Amino acid sequence: MRIYDIIKKKRDKEELTTEEINFIVEKYTNGEIPDYQMSALLMAIYFNKMNKRETLDLTKAMINSGDIVDLSGINGIKVDKHSTGGVGDTVTLIVGPMVAACGVPFVKMSGRGLGHTGGTLDKLESFRGFRVELDDEELINNANQTNICICSQTANIAPADKKLYALRDVTATVENLSLIASSIMSKKLAIGSNAIILDVKIGSGAFMKKLDDAIELAKAMVDIGQGYGRETIAVISNMDEPLGRAVGNALEVKEAIETLQGNGPEDLLQLSLFIGSKLLVLAKRVETEIEGRELLEQIIKSGAAYDKFKELVKYQEGDISQVENLNLLPKSEYIIQVKSTKSGYVKSLNAEEIGQCALLLGAGRENMESTIDYSSGIILVKKVDDKVEIDETLAEIHCNDMELGKEVEKRLQNIYVIGTRNEEPKKLIYGLVTKDGVELY
Amino acid sequence: MRIYDIIKKKRDKEELTTEEINFIVEKYTNGEIPDYQMSALLMAIYFNKMNKRETLDLTKAMINSGDIVDLSGINGIKVDKHSTGGVGDTVTLIVGPMVAACGVPFVKMSGRGLGHTGGTLDKLESFRGFRVELDDEELINNANQTNICICSQTANIAPADKKLYALRDVTATVENLSLIASSIMSKKLAIGSNAIILDVKIGSGAFMKKLDDAIELAKAMVDIGQGYGRETIAVISNMDEPLGRAVGNALEVKEAIETLQGNGPEDLLQLSLFIGSKLLVLAKRVETEIEGRELLEQIIKSGAAYDKFKELVKYQEGDISQVENLNLLPKSEYIIQVKSTKSGYVKSLNAEEIGQCALLLGAGRENMESTIDYSSGIILVKKVDDKVEIDETLAEIHCNDMELGKEVEKRLQNIYVIGTRNEEPKKLIYGLVTKDGVELY
Repeated sequence: MRIYDIIKKKRDKEELTTEEINFIVEKYTNGEIPDYQMSALLMAIYFNKMNKRETLDLTKAMINSGDIVDLSGINGIKVDKHSTGGVGDTVTLIVGPMVAACGVPFVKMSGRGLGHTGGTLDKLESFRGFRVELDDEELINNANQTNICICSQTANIAPADKKLYALRDVTATVENLSLIASSIMSKKLAIGSNAIILDVKIGSGAFMKKLDDAIELAKAMVDIGQGYGRETIAVISNMDEPLGRAVGNALEVKEAIETLQGNGPEDLLQLSLFIGSKLLVLAKRVETEIEGRELLEQIIKSGAAYDKFKELVKYQEGDISQVENLNLLPKSEYIIQVKSTKSGYVKSLNAEEIGQCALLLGAGRENMESTIDYSSGIILVKKVDDKVEIDETLAEIHCNDMELGKEVEKRLQNIYVIGTRNEEPKKLIYGLVTKDGVELY
Repeated sequence: MRIYDIIKKKRDKEELTTEEINFIVEKYTNGEIPDYQMSALLMAIYFNKMNKRETLDLTKAMINSGDIVDLSGINGIKVDKHSTGGVGDTVTLIVGPMVAACGVPFVKMSGRGLGHTGGTLDKLESFRGFRVELDDEELINNANQTNICICSQTANIAPADKKLYALRDVTATVENLSLIASSIMSKKLAIGSNAIILDVKIGSGAFMKKLDDAIELAKAMVDIGQGYGRETIAVISNMDEPLGRAVGNALEVKEAIETLQGNGPEDLLQLSLFIGSKLLVLAKRVETEIEGRELLEQIIKSGAAYDKFKELVKYQEGDISQVENLNLLPKSEYIIQVKSTKSGYVKSLNAEEIGQCALLLGAGRENMESTIDYSSGIILVKKVDDKVEIDETLAEIHCNDMELGKEVEKRLQNIYVIGTRNEEPKKLIYGLVTKDGVELY
């Protein structure tokens, strides 16, 4: 088998065999296939695509390139949840404790934030001492004790994907459905949970800008998950504006805790209930989603969801006094009130640009070497479809550098588009993709 | 300017600017752009192509990446001729001396053979002592003294092309019209001749298998040459079977000399007269091709063409006794007669496979490190459309290794397809491409 022939085959629109895909991934990972041949192949895949079988084979080969995290030591049906990345997205921090409080083990290996999107691990590290690096034994022990564990990928998960992604990133070959889907799913499936829900974001703050593209990606990922023998479904949700009101690590953690206490923003609560109730059904904890939603509402009301969050922080050695008293979370030196210069309705609130503002304030990472300012960020007092009067506060900027704060204030004035009321109200959830097909709401 | 953006632009079917093309070629040649980004770009070009302007810009940038050979020290209108590569193709060795004998300077920097195709320099080195490596001064001096010089590229001609070609060769990105045309033309145009005739081969022994593809390549190359300010035309000729009867270095040299003496095979003579008369018109030596052809026929008859060949060998320090007595050329130890096992007509004679046979005998190069056996090769006694009786000689194998000779004998028995007479007689010249358009015969 020669890589040249495989490049030529894909260039000429032919289907690659399982053996050929295994050959590519194995030899590329161990360095026998050089980058320059792999990038030519990636560009040929960009143009001529991969079918369902090739995409599943690619995913399997990437999974097999590294370690597989065995979760069989954890009792029950383990569930996992993955978002394609957004701004102000704390659903994991809400759904995890909720379903765990219902007795369903929620085990998630999460990532760091990069660019305008945040990362769950960074948010959790707002708590003093919070440990994200757990070994397999700790992970299994915590999950068996508390039903919840959110940690980093310490194992050598899908190294082929890591190497391939770095190459795609510099050769303009990221934007291919099979390559995107296999990249996400290889990392998910290498961790042995039983059921997965994918939250595919669309809109200004998401990787996918159009509904059709998001549906295609969701379908491709569900096909891979099901093809690999895991119950997999995908929700398609709105990321035109940030989710909730908080953007920035400690601010988001605070909002997540408030939501678990029943005092969170409506959109964040609703998406969390939607995803949580699906997970309860997938885990066979309840029979129907209606039942699941009732259980979750009850668990919030009873304080069990909040208690579970506290337990999570405690088991991963974070400072629970910061959960009990939210004023003890990292706080910025300054808060700037951004006032409206017009009256009307908020028409749009570009999520990516808001993410960029938070990044500028120090809440995010420019690159993997950046350090994070946990206290800084933005509170969106007004969101899309909200009525605004002149001089009313649109947003609050939490910052430790007044100059940066002032710059973000200017930018936010432009990001808040105010005018007549939108004809169609915003939508939170666009649809659901399962093995049985696509359901649009 | 970033290479990433340029890859993305071409991937998205946009036209690259002159500045972008200069940037790519310059930075790739000096190593600032890595192979893995260039190969992704090449694959994007493979799919989305380059237009006429981009192709000309690419050629110019590749020319400017290295030395330009200034021929202004040579008096008169200098002509050059290039073949896209064939088997048994000695047209350069015939046309060069013919037009030089008519007073037109013929200066050609030629290459070595590789794989199944031969190279003019290897053929000339059949003569003891023949020097192909001349410096600029020698080249200009020889050309001014004798009107002819055929030498190797000692200067650093189009290093960008060299580096790019090596990458294309291992990434399945050779087969793109713009990349092929600019690669050939950058090397031609870096040498300052005034007019160029290109011989684009089609058929089993050629790079191009189909007439339409050959026309497109010829058009692309003529466009580049004209765009660069050089009179450029292209002939499209047959390479389904080898040209002439001889395949192998000394055998071909002998055949070329015999053709210059008026005793050569008809197809080789006709193509040489066609190309030679075009060159005489391009060089303004004659007004019409008919006039040119008459002049060439006269120059063969008078012995002036043969004398010029001898002069070429003499000036480049080859042993002219081998020109005067062809029996002194390298001779193989054995000659095997390949006999026909059938009677009928020769239907086809795959030129590439015959080239492969000659290679096996030692007449060619497997790679650039191979050494050449000048004496070995094949004489095609019968060619396509010839009548054959059982036991008549089809071909002669000239070899120094009887075992290899026997193997080639078996192969030749299969290569000679004998059956009923072909309905359409073979065609030598398919057409001509000039700046005014395509003329098919």
